[in-house]
Amino acid sequence: MVYDMSVVDGLLLSNWDDTLIEKLKKGNISCVHACCGLWENARETLSNIGKWQRFFNEHHESLMQVTSGYDLYKAKKEGKIGVILGTQNTSPLEDELTLVEVFNNLGIKIMQLTYNNQNLIGSSCYEAFDNGLSRYGKLVVEEMNRVGMIVDLSHVGEKTSMDAIETSSRPVAITHANPNWFYSTKRNKSRELLQKLRDNGGVLGLCIYPHLMNGAETTLDEFCDMAAATMEFMGGSQVALGTDLTFNMSNDFLQWMRMGRWTHQVDYGAGSAENPGWPKWPGWFQDPSDFPAISEALLKRGLSEEDVSNFLGRNWERFFTIGFQQKKEMHKNEGVLSGNA
Amino acid sequence: MVYDMSVVDGLLLSNWDDTLIEKLKKGNISCVHACCGLWENARETLSNIGKWQRFFNEHHESLMQVTSGYDLYKAKKEGKIGVILGTQNTSPLEDELTLVEVFNNLGIKIMQLTYNNQNLIGSSCYEAFDNGLSRYGKLVVEEMNRVGMIVDLSHVGEKTSMDAIETSSRPVAITHANPNWFYSTKRNKSRELLQKLRDNGGVLGLCIYPHLMNGAETTLDEFCDMAAATMEFMGGSQVALGTDLTFNMSNDFLQWMRMGRWTHQVDYGAGSAENPGWPKWPGWFQDPSDFPAISEALLKRGLSEEDVSNFLGRNWERFFTIGFQQKKEMHKNEGVLSGNA
Repeated sequence: MVYDMSVVDGLLLSNWDDTLIEKLKKGNISCVHACCGLWENARETLSNIGKWQRFFNEHHESLMQVTSGYDLYKAKKEGKIGVILGTQNTSPLEDELTLVEVFNNLGIKIMQLTYNNQNLIGSSCYEAFDNGLSRYGKLVVEEMNRVGMIVDLSHVGEKTSMDAIETSSRPVAITHANPNWFYSTKRNKSRELLQKLRDNGGVLGLCIYPHLMNGAETTLDEFCDMAAATMEFMGGSQVALGTDLTFNMSNDFLQWMRMGRWTHQVDYGAGSAENPGWPKWPGWFQDPSDFPAISEALLKRGLSEEDVSNFLGRNWERFFTIGFQQKKEMHKNEGVLSGNA
Repeated sequence: MVYDMSVVDGLLLSNWDDTLIEKLKKGNISCVHACCGLWENARETLSNIGKWQRFFNEHHESLMQVTSGYDLYKAKKEGKIGVILGTQNTSPLEDELTLVEVFNNLGIKIMQLTYNNQNLIGSSCYEAFDNGLSRYGKLVVEEMNRVGMIVDLSHVGEKTSMDAIETSSRPVAITHANPNWFYSTKRNKSRELLQKLRDNGGVLGLCIYPHLMNGAETTLDEFCDMAAATMEFMGGSQVALGTDLTFNMSNDFLQWMRMGRWTHQVDYGAGSAENPGWPKWPGWFQDPSDFPAISEALLKRGLSEEDVSNFLGRNWERFFTIGFQQKKEMHKNEGVLSGNA
């Protein structure tokens, strides 16, 4: 049996241009979750979506926006790279519950509940305290469940994450983070949380962002060790990739990413005063064309072709195919929007 | 042969509730173009769309949002009332060309280029001067052509309308107005403009809004005379209905409709100082359940069943089915977004 070794990247935060598209093709990428917003409000997110639509239109021979399992299949069949739009914050919703459905209809199929700061919904992994999911936050999670928008907990605080998994009637995602017992950072996840994610049926995307590992010094063997051990802990069908690759990004964007409009002082995000700029990436992952080397290393390490294929992309494909579906049975449910289609 | 006598209303500006839905069913309405905005900007239009989506969800047994010819067919097949969302202004686009596609993807399938005032795109029928379509306005019309959003000229000034028809590569609509040689008002349309609309392949929706006729005194015979004569002038396939019915609307809404945020003085819109409030409607058209009486009167007047069926709904159905399609051949065109899907 021949296994599909194409890659689905659980998050890619790069400067999209023809160079990147070529590298994605070279790396055998079938689908990417692309970041369509960090701090933007509803109006600003419309402009971001508009820019993406124009980019899709101008690159329709190489790219295809993906909002369903059928799109995943179609993109692959047509030899195009599928792109799932998501935001790393619920800021586009502002305080308006109906905007969950509005942005879902615009193809925002993944939303991270918080970025690096507390918001209307919950707290981030960088806040001193985390009160958990707010009243509004619970309704937003239920509404995301109803319309088929994936709840992403990657930058979310521990208690808010725990509450979100308890509130969610559907599996959730951590698209880009690592177990914190491999690399201890605020962004990486505890054993308790990953246990809860496993029991929830969710998927974890292992992250190559250097600040979530040992920086550029991290070896490919180290990464493969983490991958194999995490698969043992989570099960082979619940671990995938979310590189968080920041290919060819500007320093202006770094500042926006970390400081948004919320501070006038330097904030280092996952970085530090000693390492303030864009991190240096390991030699074995400079851009998406390096993915095949990762799969080879995993195979050489003794993982089965099936496990490697699942890790590289099939797990995300299965998860997104089900997760993007609207929850029809909500018809019958009592709830804030009971009677809804 | 049995003709489909169900009604497609080219514009209904009413307070949507269970009472209205019952009257729409009673009146054998298969589809309605509903007003989703008058003066609202992009952000405010998102909230309007969100409210409509929630209303659709809560009334999914009676209503179905329509964004394609297939939806028109499906709604009728399922015995539901199809609802096409449109805005009576291009204010949702602000100054951002990509928002045409964004709002099209949210199901705004009809946009009136201007409401009652000059805007970024052109001038209204109430401005003292009309400079015609602006530079931005030409690009917006081309982009609406590309994505399959209908250009509506009902409140638009004469020169801007002429320019729009010349710029548009596809047929346009006047969803709710009358020929001004029957009732001379600024809102009704000249022989020259309607000739141009006819040559463009567009459709005119005859309007029952009392201020565009002889008020409540207008008889059903008078209306039928206008319908028959306009069909002779435009051709039987290019005249339809657009009642502009304002059923059960509040005075707050009347003020918003006429004055928006743009004036602090009373503006009477199509009304007058003598007749400042919501107009009294003719006895023969108090609500949508009165449509069958109109078709009977047209038949009694000697129109063929085919002509009456076309006038009541088939003309809009054919026009919307083609007009809502994306213009695929734009792929090959040179233009502001050349290479677009």
